[in-house]
Amino acid sequence: MEIKVMHQVLEWNEDVSGAVLDTLAAHRVCLCNVMGSPGAGKTSVLTALIERLRARYRIAVIEGDIAGQLDAEHIQRLGIPVVQLDTDGACHIEAMSIQRILPEFDLDGLDLIFVENIGNLVCPAEFKIGEHFRLALLSVPEGDDKVEKYPLMFATTDALAINKYDLHDYFDFDDARVERSAWGVNPKVALFRTSVRSGEGLDALADWVARRAEDVLHRN
Amino acid sequence: MEIKVMHQVLEWNEDVSGAVLDTLAAHRVCLCNVMGSPGAGKTSVLTALIERLRARYRIAVIEGDIAGQLDAEHIQRLGIPVVQLDTDGACHIEAMSIQRILPEFDLDGLDLIFVENIGNLVCPAEFKIGEHFRLALLSVPEGDDKVEKYPLMFATTDALAINKYDLHDYFDFDDARVERSAWGVNPKVALFRTSVRSGEGLDALADWVARRAEDVLHRN
Repeated sequence: MEIKVMHQVLEWNEDVSGAVLDTLAAHRVCLCNVMGSPGAGKTSVLTALIERLRARYRIAVIEGDIAGQLDAEHIQRLGIPVVQLDTDGACHIEAMSIQRILPEFDLDGLDLIFVENIGNLVCPAEFKIGEHFRLALLSVPEGDDKVEKYPLMFATTDALAINKYDLHDYFDFDDARVERSAWGVNPKVALFRTSVRSGEGLDALADWVARRAEDVLHRN
Repeated sequence: MEIKVMHQVLEWNEDVSGAVLDTLAAHRVCLCNVMGSPGAGKTSVLTALIERLRARYRIAVIEGDIAGQLDAEHIQRLGIPVVQLDTDGACHIEAMSIQRILPEFDLDGLDLIFVENIGNLVCPAEFKIGEHFRLALLSVPEGDDKVEKYPLMFATTDALAINKYDLHDYFDFDDARVERSAWGVNPKVALFRTSVRSGEGLDALADWVARRAEDVLHRN
């Protein structure tokens, strides 16, 4: 009975994620789902991407958090429209929440919405939220075995950024192991090395996001 | 309907966690639930604790993983009985899994079982697995805002170890913020600063685990 209920909920989530995509298409908006562990650097990478993309695209952010609004306040200081999604303890974001939040924005005045998912390598990967593409962060201090230990996250993402790369020399972190395991579960994944501290890789990652957004915005 | 089902599952989990405690009491075994983010250092801290406690206690480990058995292989090399619990994608361990695994051990030949939970700051905190006490790790690279962002984990743990403390100088990490927020949600929590690289704090943490184990072993 449990499994049946979970299955129903997931099917229902798929339906709603389709509805989110329809809403986005009607207003020509692209949505990117940003995921990673607690402390992987999601908010600071997002900030760096916004700085690089805001001249070209009208951007908004949905900040998912279990409690509080620290990250939303951080994004708001950039002068970017932001909505805080408080999951009230839940470990992931579902499409229904995105569907409810979208009317809070002036969608015709936007090109690109970033959703910062809950810091969690497990549950968020299971739920499509109506995103056009996914970006997963893995920070160097987490270790080079994480793709093998949390495969669904890395199998379902479109890009993987190895973040906090400025710390690389301080850790026993084998890039080749991450690449091998990531390509093993996801041969098409785009790989980046990024550091908000040094700036490394952020232009390349922003260019990749822009290319994906162009595909979506011109397809509609 | 969803909420009702979740409630039933949680009640059922509470019942089973009581049954696990009964089984442990019958054999005079203490169980410690070790939790933290992916890459917080659970396996390496566990290894350091085992090295410090194995002369005094007969120890076994249950290694929870979503996929693979990297951590179980690591513990096995210590010559400690270990059972791998593959959650097959699930984001936390439940008491039923522990209840099923306990007969795999010679319980009369054990004093202390460590369970390494899934790397996740959210879901594992919701499920009692029959533990006598909890140890949560927060590594310095994750950031000093994590207690505020993931409060249940830190509200329900008995001890919090700020791990990878050798990296402290490299990060803008405010210990006072972590202490203030941890004591805010959990006034009784024991706080430690630990580093497997430097050895800092591990003797103190091992002594704390030993005192908690003594309480349990003498109570039965």
